[in-house]
Amino acid sequence: MSDNTFGRLFRMTTFGESHGPAIGCVIDGCPPGLEIDAAAIQKELLRRATGRSRHTSQRKEKDEVQVLSGVFEGLTTGTPIALLIENSDARSRDYADIAEKFRPGHADFTYWKKYGVRDYRGGGRSSARETTMRVAAGAIAKKYLNEHFGIEIQGWLAQLGPIRTDEVMDLESVDDNPFFSPDASVVPQLEEYMDSLRKSGDSVGARISVRASNVPAGLGEPVYGKLDADLAAAMMGINAAKAVEIGAGFACVEQLGTRHRDEITPDGFLSNHAGGVLGGISSGQDVLVSVAFKPASSLRIPCRSVDIHGNPVEVITRGRHDPCVGIRATPIVEAMLALVLMDHVLRQRAQNG
Amino acid sequence: MSDNTFGRLFRMTTFGESHGPAIGCVIDGCPPGLEIDAAAIQKELLRRATGRSRHTSQRKEKDEVQVLSGVFEGLTTGTPIALLIENSDARSRDYADIAEKFRPGHADFTYWKKYGVRDYRGGGRSSARETTMRVAAGAIAKKYLNEHFGIEIQGWLAQLGPIRTDEVMDLESVDDNPFFSPDASVVPQLEEYMDSLRKSGDSVGARISVRASNVPAGLGEPVYGKLDADLAAAMMGINAAKAVEIGAGFACVEQLGTRHRDEITPDGFLSNHAGGVLGGISSGQDVLVSVAFKPASSLRIPCRSVDIHGNPVEVITRGRHDPCVGIRATPIVEAMLALVLMDHVLRQRAQNG
Amino acid sequence: MSDNTFGRLFRMTTFGESHGPAIGCVIDGCPPGLEIDAAAIQKELLRRATGRSRHTSQRKEKDEVQVLSGVFEGLTTGTPIALLIENSDARSRDYADIAEKFRPGHADFTYWKKYGVRDYRGGGRSSARETTMRVAAGAIAKKYLNEHFGIEIQGWLAQLGPIRTDEVMDLESVDDNPFFSPDASVVPQLEEYMDSLRKSGDSVGARISVRASNVPAGLGEPVYGKLDADLAAAMMGINAAKAVEIGAGFACVEQLGTRHRDEITPDGFLSNHAGGVLGGISSGQDVLVSVAFKPASSLRIPCRSVDIHGNPVEVITRGRHDPCVGIRATPIVEAMLALVLMDHVLRQRAQNG
Amino acid sequence: MSDNTFGRLFRMTTFGESHGPAIGCVIDGCPPGLEIDAAAIQKELLRRATGRSRHTSQRKEKDEVQVLSGVFEGLTTGTPIALLIENSDARSRDYADIAEKFRPGHADFTYWKKYGVRDYRGGGRSSARETTMRVAAGAIAKKYLNEHFGIEIQGWLAQLGPIRTDEVMDLESVDDNPFFSPDASVVPQLEEYMDSLRKSGDSVGARISVRASNVPAGLGEPVYGKLDADLAAAMMGINAAKAVEIGAGFACVEQLGTRHRDEITPDGFLSNHAGGVLGGISSGQDVLVSVAFKPASSLRIPCRSVDIHGNPVEVITRGRHDPCVGIRATPIVEAMLALVLMDHVLRQRAQNG
Repeated sequence: MSDNTFGRLFRMTTFGESHGPAIGCVIDGCPPGLEIDAAAIQKELLRRATGRSRHTSQRKEKDEVQVLSGVFEGLTTGTPIALLIENSDARSRDYADIAEKFRPGHADFTYWKKYGVRDYRGGGRSSARETTMRVAAGAIAKKYLNEHFGIEIQGWLAQLGPIRTDEVMDLESVDDNPFFSPDASVVPQLEEYMDSLRKSGDSVGARISVRASNVPAGLGEPVYGKLDADLAAAMMGINAAKAVEIGAGFACVEQLGTRHRDEITPDGFLSNHAGGVLGGISSGQDVLVSVAFKPASSLRIPCRSVDIHGNPVEVITRGRHDPCVGIRATPIVEAMLALVLMDHVLRQRAQNG
Repeated sequence: MSDNTFGRLFRMTTFGESHGPAIGCVIDGCPPGLEIDAAAIQKELLRRATGRSRHTSQRKEKDEVQVLSGVFEGLTTGTPIALLIENSDARSRDYADIAEKFRPGHADFTYWKKYGVRDYRGGGRSSARETTMRVAAGAIAKKYLNEHFGIEIQGWLAQLGPIRTDEVMDLESVDDNPFFSPDASVVPQLEEYMDSLRKSGDSVGARISVRASNVPAGLGEPVYGKLDADLAAAMMGINAAKAVEIGAGFACVEQLGTRHRDEITPDGFLSNHAGGVLGGISSGQDVLVSVAFKPASSLRIPCRSVDIHGNPVEVITRGRHDPCVGIRATPIVEAMLALVLMDHVLRQRAQNG
Repeated sequence: MSDNTFGRLFRMTTFGESHGPAIGCVIDGCPPGLEIDAAAIQKELLRRATGRSRHTSQRKEKDEVQVLSGVFEGLTTGTPIALLIENSDARSRDYADIAEKFRPGHADFTYWKKYGVRDYRGGGRSSARETTMRVAAGAIAKKYLNEHFGIEIQGWLAQLGPIRTDEVMDLESVDDNPFFSPDASVVPQLEEYMDSLRKSGDSVGARISVRASNVPAGLGEPVYGKLDADLAAAMMGINAAKAVEIGAGFACVEQLGTRHRDEITPDGFLSNHAGGVLGGISSGQDVLVSVAFKPASSLRIPCRSVDIHGNPVEVITRGRHDPCVGIRATPIVEAMLALVLMDHVLRQRAQNG
Repeated sequence: MSDNTFGRLFRMTTFGESHGPAIGCVIDGCPPGLEIDAAAIQKELLRRATGRSRHTSQRKEKDEVQVLSGVFEGLTTGTPIALLIENSDARSRDYADIAEKFRPGHADFTYWKKYGVRDYRGGGRSSARETTMRVAAGAIAKKYLNEHFGIEIQGWLAQLGPIRTDEVMDLESVDDNPFFSPDASVVPQLEEYMDSLRKSGDSVGARISVRASNVPAGLGEPVYGKLDADLAAAMMGINAAKAVEIGAGFACVEQLGTRHRDEITPDGFLSNHAGGVLGGISSGQDVLVSVAFKPASSLRIPCRSVDIHGNPVEVITRGRHDPCVGIRATPIVEAMLALVLMDHVLRQRAQNG
């Protein structure tokens, strides 16, 4: 059962391969009457675009989004919204070499095992290019959430390889540097680290955190549509994600109950180890999520692998790649959080009016 | 949109409150012709039952499962399988005190905010009692997976509070101690720690890991039904779970790509940092998942809270509770892994024959 | 992909075989705070019960419904509502004779082809006994729809074999006769016809119509969740149904557009050929649906068939059966209409607030 | 809960308005390795295209379908297939007059009531233009069904207004006349009738029938995914459909059980009143469905209506319309049948291997 649709009531269906003619999505379930601001979508797309600094892939996509349906005279009509972006700077020749080789750490091997056929150019459907549409759809969700609830969503780089970047938190400054670091003072260190990494031909992992403020209490559908479970799926489903935490996350393994439980007073909660979710339902506190991204596996440093016939081969990747895929993940993590919250706003409304 | 159904093709719908007349589930989509072994279900239920040692809740449920439908002459018929367990040792009087109080760290507050009405007795629907049915349904999935693919699923306690229990791994011995510890030598230390914890009235978190072997390559539906995303939702949706890792998990933040990517030779993969999933699809390697459980919040140590009218109150919980809810989570984690794999076996078969 | 769940947001999952220990259902998505009136459920169940007159099957089920979950102190809590009815008067010995024979016109052959195994006793899962739970769940939906919108749902027998019963329509009198005929004057003719039919050992078809009044405009989700499409599926999915009409139905084949289109004035529509649905969305007019039910195939008049080995056999059915299954279909048709409307009330609310 | 997706495992999501920049669809779940034959899609599109004879709308769309994803080197890859058709001959100025008027018999009124905003040009989303994508997706399903099972699907005009066209059945000749009449001898009569109708400015209804041969036994998922229930929804959801029959349909109201039940011999069934479905599951006999289409409501003959402010208005429609929308429905009915069967082939495979 193929599944290229995200969400239950606010549903995004994406399509497209990295090196095909276009990528796109259909958003079904968007409430009518929302002003669609193409510029706002474009602004979010720019945040995740490649080629913005020397630290990310040099592929230069214009990423101009076309709205094909569902909007009339500037307002959503309640019918499906189709968004389309044509692929322009796809250099498929870079990939001829790997047509029959499985790149370790990639989906090449598993797509082959699953389908028996694959579009190997640029990773085809498994390429992070697909996340462009998540960001586009997320921009619409963000707008609705902000207009109707005042919800604010902000992600940031919390760690890049060995460098912690969340010890000083100035979320206002996140967009002022190419790393989405909330601590401007650490940026030179990041630049230096990345330059050295790029030189070595290696890559590294990262941790991205995200916060949603002003989330109303009551979102989340126990016991199999819990808000935190849906967030975990949303985040783990992003390319290269390997771990997800809500609130205190793994730290709670060593916490005592007297410390972890967030006491309540008439003025509100006294702490937020829960990360804004209790029993799978939002509590009204900030929703806090953190995601680990693995280091990219596409390296010019050779490694051992096999081809589709099972023969040993050496793999060297020459395409344009991100030495730290986590860097560009911040807007994607924000988008997924927005999509989950948007879906749950509609779900809550359905049953509880 | 309420959601008490888990899975897409192998679907489990659970119902029932902790202190209602019964809990149960309906399993829809089970292939016909599977021998249903009530004893095997009962054996799994016993593994998660309360009252088995002094380290878990003293509530004593018989947990006798009745099969109401879907089985004829010992074989599944392809029609829905209903399982029912009557609640027997529910001491609702323990809860009268908290009818109007919100227990911090519990779902009391959020259910109230969501629904405006709640069955407060024993946590009602948010009680971990619901997980009994997950284990029951998981037993059926385990049986199918084992018979058809040889899949073996084994969970264990990896850490309890400050005590690591996975440095020596003897998975054969996991069921020989009440902690599901794979390292028998650490059991006395665990006993001592738990005794002291119980005496103090406090609770602590835990980390549970699980492994599935012999999983065929090709399971997982990119890009929104990825195997790891579905596992993340399954695990995060368990009561008290706060974090989920696949394979290297958060450790990959500091890994270099040359280390993380699992090289391939004609004899197989040379490592398994991926945890058996590439691009959201199983690779044929062991599937490895790890889950953090928070410390229980129901303590006899008083804490601050509010009542449904917003007034400050003191909360002391006197019911029978687990000082480390993670201990009994091992069979639940196994069950959720089995349910996800079972669902994906059917999903893969649907599209790819 | 098995599918024993009806509805998208107000979801009923049914289980149970005709001669198993029990039948039941789980209703997920019911809004909280609805007073559940067991007597009202029981009253609806009585309307469809067998054994009420000599014209229906003589199987006598008590049909006492137990509410296992989802209701606390008389009110729904928003969590799943499980209903259970134990089977009491199941005479399975009547069926030993057909364990290996396929009864023509029944699901015996197709269940065998589909699953390779079947519970043949009383038709197992394909028995109309399953519809008991539809009526029970429908009673809850009816109550909500009536309380919140003033919606009234009334079905009636429109035709039984050659006898039209809808030429005089007094819907108040429908429940005063065992046929659900809206024309009391035709009842003696129906009795005579049925007596003669029973004597002959044969059976006959029927047409049941249903009307929902006070349905708000705007229900229905184009283009694949249209109200009329969902009604068609709901009705065609009832045992023995073979055709469904909305409004003018097949009569519109010969209508001219000038006649069919329902003109509108400031005081409302001037006619209702559309049956209350335009473009798949309710218009605020009465929703009108009509359903054809085939004659029962279980007859004591012998017929040709084959057994599971392909050998020719003669089939004579000796169980207790309805000579006109359509008679008892009226409350089922009402229930399905209520379930569809209830689902669409929630669906409309989700997207459009 | 908006719903622009058809199918459960073979899923088609359509988007686009009649006068927007484009219409399109995303097909998710298509098995990999199917040769996609753009010419075959185009051929089906041509069958439903407007402007082919004087008896249908004169709108001339090129309907050139672009395949944007999911196909690599001529074969499906298992990833979503996006199809796009640009709208070219949309004369929106024809509709300025009705921007604030509700055309009787149309979805204008109900979309307005539902969403509070609508794209009125050419009916927007409610236009039959949307069915183009059903035919395109249906072409892919037809191809798969034919290649893997030898399934043949053929629809025909069974009645147009008062003219029965199915008394002589030569299904080979259906595509030889612009009416899809299986009886060539009745074509002159149809032409004359339509010419006179067009002259009068009126419209008329039609009945379309369809047959699928070589359908394997076992398709259909009782009890809420029955094959006939899904067919009923599929057909009733086509624009202008008002009634659906399976097999004997409404005729079974007057049939006796001894006549209706299709007896079985070792050589097969002796009749097919069931229309190929027993208990919601295909029996291996031909699947037979018949659908009523209402007369078009867009007429140049004036009628009474109201505007969005509730004021009385006169409506005259001047756009290019079909005097009998049923004529072009034949390929659409075939497509919906193909989509339902395709979905059920995958569903059957999922649970039953």
